[in-house]
Amino acid sequence: MATRWTAEDLKGVIAVAPTPAKEGAQDFRETMTVDLDETERMVKNLLRDGVHGLLTNGTLGEMATLTFEEWKAFAEVVYLTVRAHNPDFPLFIGATTLSTRDTIERMRFLRDLGVRGVFLGRPFWSELGPDAMIRYYRDVTAAFPEMSIVLYDNPEAFKGPIPTPVYRELAKNPRIIGAKYIALTPKYRADVEAVNGKIRLMPLDSDWLQAVALYPVEAQAFWSSSALCGPEPVLYLWKAVQEGRWDDARWVTQRIEWTYEPFLARQNFREFSKYNIPLEKIRFDEAGYVKAGPTRPPYHVVPEAYAEGARENGRRWRTLVEEVRRREKDAEKRKEVLK
Amino acid sequence: MATRWTAEDLKGVIAVAPTPAKEGAQDFRETMTVDLDETERMVKNLLRDGVHGLLTNGTLGEMATLTFEEWKAFAEVVYLTVRAHNPDFPLFIGATTLSTRDTIERMRFLRDLGVRGVFLGRPFWSELGPDAMIRYYRDVTAAFPEMSIVLYDNPEAFKGPIPTPVYRELAKNPRIIGAKYIALTPKYRADVEAVNGKIRLMPLDSDWLQAVALYPVEAQAFWSSSALCGPEPVLYLWKAVQEGRWDDARWVTQRIEWTYEPFLARQNFREFSKYNIPLEKIRFDEAGYVKAGPTRPPYHVVPEAYAEGARENGRRWRTLVEEVRRREKDAEKRKEVLK
Amino acid sequence: MATRWTAEDLKGVIAVAPTPAKEGAQDFRETMTVDLDETERMVKNLLRDGVHGLLTNGTLGEMATLTFEEWKAFAEVVYLTVRAHNPDFPLFIGATTLSTRDTIERMRFLRDLGVRGVFLGRPFWSELGPDAMIRYYRDVTAAFPEMSIVLYDNPEAFKGPIPTPVYRELAKNPRIIGAKYIALTPKYRADVEAVNGKIRLMPLDSDWLQAVALYPVEAQAFWSSSALCGPEPVLYLWKAVQEGRWDDARWVTQRIEWTYEPFLARQNFREFSKYNIPLEKIRFDEAGYVKAGPTRPPYHVVPEAYAEGARENGRRWRTLVEEVRRREKDAEKRKEVLK
Amino acid sequence: MATRWTAEDLKGVIAVAPTPAKEGAQDFRETMTVDLDETERMVKNLLRDGVHGLLTNGTLGEMATLTFEEWKAFAEVVYLTVRAHNPDFPLFIGATTLSTRDTIERMRFLRDLGVRGVFLGRPFWSELGPDAMIRYYRDVTAAFPEMSIVLYDNPEAFKGPIPTPVYRELAKNPRIIGAKYIALTPKYRADVEAVNGKIRLMPLDSDWLQAVALYPVEAQAFWSSSALCGPEPVLYLWKAVQEGRWDDARWVTQRIEWTYEPFLARQNFREFSKYNIPLEKIRFDEAGYVKAGPTRPPYHVVPEAYAEGARENGRRWRTLVEEVRRREKDAEKRKEVLK
Repeated sequence: MATRWTAEDLKGVIAVAPTPAKEGAQDFRETMTVDLDETERMVKNLLRDGVHGLLTNGTLGEMATLTFEEWKAFAEVVYLTVRAHNPDFPLFIGATTLSTRDTIERMRFLRDLGVRGVFLGRPFWSELGPDAMIRYYRDVTAAFPEMSIVLYDNPEAFKGPIPTPVYRELAKNPRIIGAKYIALTPKYRADVEAVNGKIRLMPLDSDWLQAVALYPVEAQAFWSSSALCGPEPVLYLWKAVQEGRWDDARWVTQRIEWTYEPFLARQNFREFSKYNIPLEKIRFDEAGYVKAGPTRPPYHVVPEAYAEGARENGRRWRTLVEEVRRREKDAEKRKEVLK
Repeated sequence: MATRWTAEDLKGVIAVAPTPAKEGAQDFRETMTVDLDETERMVKNLLRDGVHGLLTNGTLGEMATLTFEEWKAFAEVVYLTVRAHNPDFPLFIGATTLSTRDTIERMRFLRDLGVRGVFLGRPFWSELGPDAMIRYYRDVTAAFPEMSIVLYDNPEAFKGPIPTPVYRELAKNPRIIGAKYIALTPKYRADVEAVNGKIRLMPLDSDWLQAVALYPVEAQAFWSSSALCGPEPVLYLWKAVQEGRWDDARWVTQRIEWTYEPFLARQNFREFSKYNIPLEKIRFDEAGYVKAGPTRPPYHVVPEAYAEGARENGRRWRTLVEEVRRREKDAEKRKEVLK
Repeated sequence: MATRWTAEDLKGVIAVAPTPAKEGAQDFRETMTVDLDETERMVKNLLRDGVHGLLTNGTLGEMATLTFEEWKAFAEVVYLTVRAHNPDFPLFIGATTLSTRDTIERMRFLRDLGVRGVFLGRPFWSELGPDAMIRYYRDVTAAFPEMSIVLYDNPEAFKGPIPTPVYRELAKNPRIIGAKYIALTPKYRADVEAVNGKIRLMPLDSDWLQAVALYPVEAQAFWSSSALCGPEPVLYLWKAVQEGRWDDARWVTQRIEWTYEPFLARQNFREFSKYNIPLEKIRFDEAGYVKAGPTRPPYHVVPEAYAEGARENGRRWRTLVEEVRRREKDAEKRKEVLK
Repeated sequence: MATRWTAEDLKGVIAVAPTPAKEGAQDFRETMTVDLDETERMVKNLLRDGVHGLLTNGTLGEMATLTFEEWKAFAEVVYLTVRAHNPDFPLFIGATTLSTRDTIERMRFLRDLGVRGVFLGRPFWSELGPDAMIRYYRDVTAAFPEMSIVLYDNPEAFKGPIPTPVYRELAKNPRIIGAKYIALTPKYRADVEAVNGKIRLMPLDSDWLQAVALYPVEAQAFWSSSALCGPEPVLYLWKAVQEGRWDDARWVTQRIEWTYEPFLARQNFREFSKYNIPLEKIRFDEAGYVKAGPTRPPYHVVPEAYAEGARENGRRWRTLVEEVRRREKDAEKRKEVLK
């Protein structure tokens, strides 16, 4: 049997994937909307291109709006595709619901399937108090001691951040090995201290260089939904830092930031939070790496100006992919010349 | 077949009920936690005592944390108990979920059971934008043209209020007949104007006298979870206003306010929102009108100081029930003397 | 010597006045911008028309942007005009500054002038904590035991409301007799209980009928900046309630609400708070009762769409003044016919 | 005559200084509370120890609560002390008030004194809208074309951040050369792009290493109020980065973070904002580099638990000063050994 994962197993680019949808998925009368072929293709491509981990069924992965049956079908294809390629690949499937018991039902399905990693937020009809948060994670990990958890720390979705004292407590639980972290604020530094290396706090791609500048040991992974627009830029970033090429790392970080400029997330985060799901899917479709397809109801309704910003983000990402390829080719040529 | 309801059918005290739980319901390993006997007793008592409507499975009704099976069993008992007593009684069963399709599945069950009314919030993983809100309610009402909707307008749960322009739009839909309204602010006045009598905006019991002072025609119903601590005080309030006994109406409103004083909802509403569910159940249990039982996970964890405030609220409500009875008896005596 | 005022002296319509400005007052190079003639005319008209009290130099009274010299000149004219008419008229001149010592300097000037009432917010560069709030009001009232204070409770300006426990404490200070209160929420009821009749909590004109419905003894005064658009409607409201004409009171309250409909304050309060000062002055100028004149810098810059909403509010108020006059005339005719 | 400053002149550690107060300064009856001797000593020591710039009279510099006379006396001593040492030293004296005209009066005094730099927030009784913000800074810089401005971008004090489009506009004004910036968020990156090198956006000491990792050209200065606890650690940080000693830079940044751990600013920023002024003065007094003295009213009231956290921060800073000295000595020894 595989040994259990630890924070050390989260290293590199952790992609955050959508749940591809078939034509017509925005219609509430449809019952099986997952594009399973595209799902398989997406996962294969990510593995082939070399991302270092995968999170599914968060916000943009439409955890909220998939039916149970759809979620199961998607999880199965993702898992089997990953397993066929590399059984040790860090895969974390989302299982966040509105209650402890529903989440446990989801995790039981995953466990029985063979899945080892879960990407897990918390119930949020009412915001959970700190003690209830600790209790919730204790309960679900006690029920599945063989599974590893990446926390989903999303203050907009779950009505508040995971407080620093809660991180300190959760870090004592060896089943909790990582967290999709929201943003670099002074709280990030406090949380890095609090988890003491036991939970890998993963910042966003464009935040990562700043994180690694201060915490080179702790900040060895970052999440990226942009990886689903094409992973080259974020893989380039990872490699540049590994090789100490700081100018390259800065260059690509600033270019990534440039692609985000027209995206609503940068202009008005509060408003973005309402249209997060369709806007991510729209930019994926525009970039062309994955066919994310329509958004499931009720999140398929989005103002056109916001949609256009997302498309522009997708187009800029495509441009950046070309820039990165050219830069890599140039660098190789220079090396050959110098031989 | 019964005619469809309109805003006019919401008149009087609309009770907001919990989902009674059996011993041990706080344990996530339990699978059928609903106390169906107590559910039946609770509904019978409310009907016997004369409340004018019933909403179930909102926040305190643990919509979030019941399993689908539990929710169905509870809905069935509530519905059959109501039907046996009065098929026209305004009963609205909660069916809020995280997605359009899951809510439709719930409503289908209710419709097939014979239920005519639904108490309905909106998906809230991401806050819904105004257009998406309108579309969501249009979709679910189009799917069930024979059912009537009471909107659940809870800014804490659903990450924002229903905006006034959305109310204006929803009022054009004859299937939407009421709303559990949050608080008396200037927005309430704007919303009363916007719905133009088509949606009954129901304020909280202790807000109601102020609402009726300005809108005697529009404000003919109010919601009350305190009715589940014993409905006499709110029924007394309703009757006092019907009979133009303003001093009595003021007296009981101020006494109701007095019972709320130690309750966290009055002291810190933001913090209360985290512990809303267990605190309501605790005060119900202390007041003794219904045996609400333990809170389902993960909301069963609550700081003791808050719990004690809830118990004190329950005790004060019991005192108020006695005061109301005495006052009614005294009034009757005075009448007899004057004959 | 005049006896000191108490909460009982605040009864009726308490007008909130601007500081009239001469042409060119928006130019930062101007040094004496107060239109003293218009100031005198405004105060005389308010007294003649029968308002029951006056607050000056709050937000819209441009406390923030008058020079010390201008403020002194304005205060002098206001005070002398009031004194000539009625030395016991409840006049409260604003003296809010960023520090205890600057406010005391202002109050010393007022005291030496003969002014008995001060309209007083609190320092707000940093939000004041509750203990600091209590200490601040204790210090300034101890320094001027002969003066009476109306609290300025403006959560937007001063970065938070006066908390209920602070109200409870301030109510023990006989020098604090009233408060310009922000809005009818459950906190209003808690605060009414907390001050126990010692501080007159004065709601806004359009909130007042709802306040008086629940607290007929306590809620015997309300503030109105709309009085400066022409006081008839709010005086009509006051009289209607005094005479128990509830239908008339409701009618005029709803018509007042109608005038506010296009005003930014009703549509987006947060945004309104940025343009509060010019928008109030614009609607005054449009209504024509007072010539408020241009706004002093830096608050003279306001988007045109907002300005137009303010003008429409002013026009609607003029219409309402006509409606009120007609209604009063009709009522009189009916009375004569019935003689 | 001296040439005017540009963003390039802001390079290194920019200290943020308090206004030293004499015994009894917390008493509102005191009229001249500035400890001018300590002021002179403080400035001399900062210059001697090698900080690269100085900001005075921000929040902790008690801009809000100094009398005009006190502010003038303080400004004079600061300016003359600096001039005697180095007339080109980047000194920016605070002149934020509630109005354009009052600020202009302050700036006139500074200009006449010979001061070349102003540290300038904006009026904030009402939050300034973006157009009003641009107009305000245009007006004051037009009035004093020979002076240079460092923006004070403090969202808590001034009720919101300087929006990115406003930064873009202000960057066109050559008189605006820097900004005391609040925190590293994605907005920081957008603002760096927007100002295009024309405004030096200065982060906090403990944020700076992360800023410089991404923007080595742009992020060449940072602000530090901790410099007033003793400037060695922040000077060490500056030097380490200049010399490419990244491990040392990381070490000292993490140690600085450790000193902040017990400070309320790190635990609850919203609550800290209420007690910002006394807490900064308390930690300065505990660290012992400057005798900041009591806080002027009404900000002298502070809960003891918060005060103790500030003292612990001061003690930790003293410890860190020792650690830095030891580390420097060790490094020198190693160098000598290697000769």
